[in-house]
Amino acid sequence: MSSEFDLIARYFTRPTPGADLGVGDDAALLTVQPGHQLVVSCDMLVAGTHFLADAEPELLGWKTMAVSVSDLAAMSARPRWATLAISLPQADDAWIGSLAAGIHACCAAFGVELVGGDTTRGPLNLCATVFGEVPAGQATTRGGARPGDELWVSGQPGRAALALGELLSGSEISPALAASCRMALHRPEPRLALGLGLRGHASAMLDVSDGLLGDLGHLLAQSRVGAELDAEALPISPLLAACGDRRQAMDALLRGGDDYELLFSAPPDERQAIRDIAARCGVPVHCIGRLDPNAGQVALRFADNRVEPLATKGYDHFRGVDQPAP
Amino acid sequence: MSSEFDLIARYFTRPTPGADLGVGDDAALLTVQPGHQLVVSCDMLVAGTHFLADAEPELLGWKTMAVSVSDLAAMSARPRWATLAISLPQADDAWIGSLAAGIHACCAAFGVELVGGDTTRGPLNLCATVFGEVPAGQATTRGGARPGDELWVSGQPGRAALALGELLSGSEISPALAASCRMALHRPEPRLALGLGLRGHASAMLDVSDGLLGDLGHLLAQSRVGAELDAEALPISPLLAACGDRRQAMDALLRGGDDYELLFSAPPDERQAIRDIAARCGVPVHCIGRLDPNAGQVALRFADNRVEPLATKGYDHFRGVDQPAP
Repeated sequence: MSSEFDLIARYFTRPTPGADLGVGDDAALLTVQPGHQLVVSCDMLVAGTHFLADAEPELLGWKTMAVSVSDLAAMSARPRWATLAISLPQADDAWIGSLAAGIHACCAAFGVELVGGDTTRGPLNLCATVFGEVPAGQATTRGGARPGDELWVSGQPGRAALALGELLSGSEISPALAASCRMALHRPEPRLALGLGLRGHASAMLDVSDGLLGDLGHLLAQSRVGAELDAEALPISPLLAACGDRRQAMDALLRGGDDYELLFSAPPDERQAIRDIAARCGVPVHCIGRLDPNAGQVALRFADNRVEPLATKGYDHFRGVDQPAP
Repeated sequence: MSSEFDLIARYFTRPTPGADLGVGDDAALLTVQPGHQLVVSCDMLVAGTHFLADAEPELLGWKTMAVSVSDLAAMSARPRWATLAISLPQADDAWIGSLAAGIHACCAAFGVELVGGDTTRGPLNLCATVFGEVPAGQATTRGGARPGDELWVSGQPGRAALALGELLSGSEISPALAASCRMALHRPEPRLALGLGLRGHASAMLDVSDGLLGDLGHLLAQSRVGAELDAEALPISPLLAACGDRRQAMDALLRGGDDYELLFSAPPDERQAIRDIAARCGVPVHCIGRLDPNAGQVALRFADNRVEPLATKGYDHFRGVDQPAP
């Protein structure tokens, strides 16, 4: 069986030309570019909570890095380095090799160098901390939205929730869309180019990892605004085509987690700039509503002008069911 | 029961005046001082591997932060910020409150601000990533030792191993020394002042977390030198007094892990400076041998000039027993 040091040397040590000192000392040494802030995000993925114990290790490796890269994208920050701590029940070389391949593939795709970490024995647990840079003062936070700003979401939130439903309860997805839903769940694509492109255009941004309404609740709380969503503008059709049930599709869109799309606000005069940036990135974007002064409130407006209040609920690992965000 | 967001807000969110943006967004924003390198270390502590499931949570919180602070001390770097990811089997408020108290106590003691993290459900696992600063080019790495340098160790390595033996197999420790051994295991004191003081004096340094010989092996490998230890100079007497058995005391000293003392090398003409620095820090230091060109080899020299080779063994989480370091 491989030792802890063998594992680190064989699977997790790669050249790190962008680091002053990488894996192999007590700590890594890095130089942040002058005039930039350091941006740090940390995510822990646990077997049985975030993924099934028999998850495909290469996809799991990809996702472990992708969820933190997505957080940096949501700050309009460029990821540069990461540390990775792994707890493993046993040192199975083939499994770890596949996991490492997925980790390195995601790192390579988004310009991240693995500069340190920890490998230990225990229940399967993966903890990635990603470090990046943003020109000082130019990060897009959750707190900059203003009443009158429009609300946007990228791509197709809800696909991961449909794939999770298929995995856990066997609910069917139409064959034409099943692959795209499964990829959204197992191999999420952080919207890095879009997040970087929106720097200076979006007034507030975050990624949709706790569900669209749950994360919208965070944005509203930090920016002290409310939101009105246009029912007609929500990208529900592909989900409806995938699952054939309007209620299920709407629930996946508004409350499903694990999507890693970007939810952002911007003044109306940024509309064309946003469409141009999104087109350059090859990512669809949807203007789904607008912000108002009703702090923390979310309303859904239908085509007949009927308005219905919505609760900003997200997935909570401790309650296991939707609960209002604080 | 508390939600994930409640837990973070109540127990892990504290003022972070040294951060541009702390807990509560997709990522933290930090400014590294001009002319400094960022220094990053990451450690994962797992129930059943690094501590017993019934460990006292306040001590566990302290130790979680302390082991990474110790890594920065070993680089002569000043810790400034940390992220903390926690996986918990349940949201037990009293337990989490004690854990958080230990975490914040260690952060306060060493000038660290908790700027982000993740809280999730799963088997008990704590992952701390600590980041700090060092003036550019002045970190003390493992790779700078030269033949002719003297080898030093701080404090009293071996105490944690005796306390672990008491905990796991009931081996006795004399009452006069039991408290000090237990503190070494459960509430290790990172040698930060000493590590900072030794910047520019030590040629190489690391902390003794895998056992003195295991970590010495890392230093020798990175610096491509060998070492000869003086049997008479090893700080064995207090351990012998504690356990009453020479073989057990020697094994604890040379092979016991979890000590978080500093092992470092320095040219002989730094001897007085090192003693002065250590005295100012109130930490005993022992000159235990010297380095030679026999790359990777360790010899133990006795008073009668007899020389015995030693294997550089450390604790390995996957093999569970001492194995040669790579």
